[in-house]
Amino acid sequence: MAQRWESGVLRRRPDQLIVEEPLEIRLDGHLVGTTMRTPGHDFELAVGLCHGDGLLAGATVRTCRYCGTGSAVETAFNVVSVDTGGQAPTPTPRVAATTSACGMCGSSELEALRDRIAPIPVGEPWDLELLTSLPGALAADQELFAATGAVHAAAAFDRSGAAVVVREDIGRHNAVDKVVGRLLLDGALPATDLGLWISGRAGFEIVQKAWAAGFSAVVAVSAPSALAVEAARLAGITLVGFVRSGPDGTTANVYSPEAR
Amino acid sequence: MAQRWESGVLRRRPDQLIVEEPLEIRLDGHLVGTTMRTPGHDFELAVGLCHGDGLLAGATVRTCRYCGTGSAVETAFNVVSVDTGGQAPTPTPRVAATTSACGMCGSSELEALRDRIAPIPVGEPWDLELLTSLPGALAADQELFAATGAVHAAAAFDRSGAAVVVREDIGRHNAVDKVVGRLLLDGALPATDLGLWISGRAGFEIVQKAWAAGFSAVVAVSAPSALAVEAARLAGITLVGFVRSGPDGTTANVYSPEAR
Repeated sequence: MAQRWESGVLRRRPDQLIVEEPLEIRLDGHLVGTTMRTPGHDFELAVGLCHGDGLLAGATVRTCRYCGTGSAVETAFNVVSVDTGGQAPTPTPRVAATTSACGMCGSSELEALRDRIAPIPVGEPWDLELLTSLPGALAADQELFAATGAVHAAAAFDRSGAAVVVREDIGRHNAVDKVVGRLLLDGALPATDLGLWISGRAGFEIVQKAWAAGFSAVVAVSAPSALAVEAARLAGITLVGFVRSGPDGTTANVYSPEAR
Repeated sequence: MAQRWESGVLRRRPDQLIVEEPLEIRLDGHLVGTTMRTPGHDFELAVGLCHGDGLLAGATVRTCRYCGTGSAVETAFNVVSVDTGGQAPTPTPRVAATTSACGMCGSSELEALRDRIAPIPVGEPWDLELLTSLPGALAADQELFAATGAVHAAAAFDRSGAAVVVREDIGRHNAVDKVVGRLLLDGALPATDLGLWISGRAGFEIVQKAWAAGFSAVVAVSAPSALAVEAARLAGITLVGFVRSGPDGTTANVYSPEAR
């Protein structure tokens, strides 16, 4: 129960809040990390995060399961173990993973990515008319947002602009991980003929995840960062941002491919 | 240089993008973690992050310095070392820190916080009229946002609603860390008589940082999470969200203290 303030008057009012809880992710029994997330689609989140961090290294996911060890009932659903039967290399905890960027400027960061991930194959160019007309259609699928106004959404869409997977989470990165995890579990990676739509901004890590999953287009409702634009150009990803609908039609910025 | 899409027509257009680069943070020489951030106020970010994670444990910060070890010039400003002369306990890397939440449900998470951080002293109640009138005034200080539309802002404000410190970053958590770091370096913590304003949503970690810094009020332009609301109530922090100005005046939701 919250209180609503309206022009100086305070009234009690029921309010729906978005749930946020820690999820510990393990790979073949080894700790990968803990993330604050909106519960739901936890296996997809765990698998997508492992994939985006390059931890699977091509290994097949055999099972996903909840494996809480605490005595309280609530703890059972906040630990997920991804199992590849030992095929995946032993993960370095996430702090060590990010440490590989230590002391590097953005350019070195990009070079490291280029060495690790293959460029997106050059395919048919995306239709900008289609990319800039997405938001309205995909936003309709955001159930949690409609209820709480607090979540981010990510969606994979096909060449006709239809949503293939839509996921929501209090964390933007989590929403992307859930989409990627679903596609991986469906055997649909690399997602070369799909695009990734996100409800907010596109930072470097979002483009990195899209690249690792093989998306050939990224559409962000809000702004990308400079490093995200560089990464998209390097990867061969079509990157569109600031997609807005107004009375005079749709506007957007096309950041990648680079203007000639 | 980006391209602007307007109702089916694509035109070249100069565009300002927000910069995002990795910052490695060390405490007395030990690795704390790496965060993607907007360069600027890096010492404040490093100090604020160490404080928010409880790593200083009351130790005094003696110096902050850049300490890149790479050969390229660009690397020099992406590693910051916070020095307490060994007063602070040896930090566990951040993955280990978050691991302490492993397998815990949100309630256990809250109990752990309550055991670690003292409640905010009960002071004079905040004037809701003042809290709900903040956004317009503080947004005016957001230079980067005005230029790029891509950053988050955080501000510490006093009992008159005046901004004491305003910081921007591509990451919401970083913006809060920078504000807290500035106050710490100024000897202004705990910030019991100050409030914290943030341009976006208030998740659990934002309220945790505010609690650790001693803020007695948190005002978020967007929604809090359920766990954030519980944490604010436990801490004794006044939490206001969804602050919006319209033709009929200002509206907002008051989440903490709890409605009676």
